[in-house]
Amino acid sequence: MTELRVHTFSISLDGFAAGPGQSLEHPLGVGGHRLHEWVFPDGRDRTDVDDAFILRGEDGVGATIMGRNMFGPVRSEWADSADWTGWWGAEPPFHHDVCVLTHHARPPLPMAGGTTFHFVTDGIEAALERARDAADGQSVRLGGGVATVQQYLRAGLLDELHLAVVPVLLASGERLFEGLGDVLDGWSCVEFTPSDAVAHVRLRRL
Amino acid sequence: MTELRVHTFSISLDGFAAGPGQSLEHPLGVGGHRLHEWVFPDGRDRTDVDDAFILRGEDGVGATIMGRNMFGPVRSEWADSADWTGWWGAEPPFHHDVCVLTHHARPPLPMAGGTTFHFVTDGIEAALERARDAADGQSVRLGGGVATVQQYLRAGLLDELHLAVVPVLLASGERLFEGLGDVLDGWSCVEFTPSDAVAHVRLRRL
Repeated sequence: MTELRVHTFSISLDGFAAGPGQSLEHPLGVGGHRLHEWVFPDGRDRTDVDDAFILRGEDGVGATIMGRNMFGPVRSEWADSADWTGWWGAEPPFHHDVCVLTHHARPPLPMAGGTTFHFVTDGIEAALERARDAADGQSVRLGGGVATVQQYLRAGLLDELHLAVVPVLLASGERLFEGLGDVLDGWSCVEFTPSDAVAHVRLRRL
Repeated sequence: MTELRVHTFSISLDGFAAGPGQSLEHPLGVGGHRLHEWVFPDGRDRTDVDDAFILRGEDGVGATIMGRNMFGPVRSEWADSADWTGWWGAEPPFHHDVCVLTHHARPPLPMAGGTTFHFVTDGIEAALERARDAADGQSVRLGGGVATVQQYLRAGLLDELHLAVVPVLLASGERLFEGLGDVLDGWSCVEFTPSDAVAHVRLRRL
């Protein structure tokens, strides 16, 4: 069974998954990079526990879905920004099909290393169907941002949510667990494995 | 220097320190008891890490301040509820002076084991002054609930905040980090020590 899973989704102690004011200069919002320092630690090695969780987000994953804001800073029509090819350079680290949710059509964008970005304009269910086909029996990974994860949570389409709780305070920005009401009913922690840097939590709907 | 510190303040993954609907039957709100199962684990021993953090909230502490809702479920005049002596039975575990913040005067309440509850009606600064006198050079511990901790944070009177991030979702209730704006500026994690049950985080204003 092809699962839809979120991996290594970092949130601050006060619940924010991105800082305020996302832009080309601040892709994760102001201060948001502090949520990801455990992935790219400065001057020290990543812990084995953190490594293992990061690998779980790659092993057995055959396709990725992400929101448009995770793909880039462009917010309206592509227009002059049609040369934007993502944050990841010429060879993105996905190496499979990536469905980008957007209201603005654009032709598929094949990149080096096997990644092709598909711009899906007919909704989250269509994107999931397309990603499942592309994954060919493997799992589909759901990227961010917050709005995208919330949409799939609300639709009951998400199977697993792996959070990394990072011991920083952001004070403002985008909160993952906001306005979800009873959407979280039945979701429980199935694994709690802290590293020296963050607390890893795997949540599933039981 | 007498510090004012919060110890073992439990918050859920989604940021809640109590569930909704606090009452005599549900002192921590509906579902809120799940935040404290790590303190009173059912059928297993508490971990050494958790033990050590709980002890830090007792060693060197000479007085306690708490909000009225932590003292009891009574919400208006004491009136018929003047026989309420707290949640902790005849011998509360404080063994020192406890200042209860309230708008409703009541005579001091001495209990077995050295605890005396003082009902302070002239504000958080007066309560702190009184607790500092009582602590006699030791630290003052600040209990809950959320509103009380927020008041001291806003007034810049808090020195340390020890959180236990508990891997549960409450979905609603009282959030600690809500509406604080720039009050959190300068507050940083000075220690991150996860146990098998919770992630301990010590925050201080640097």
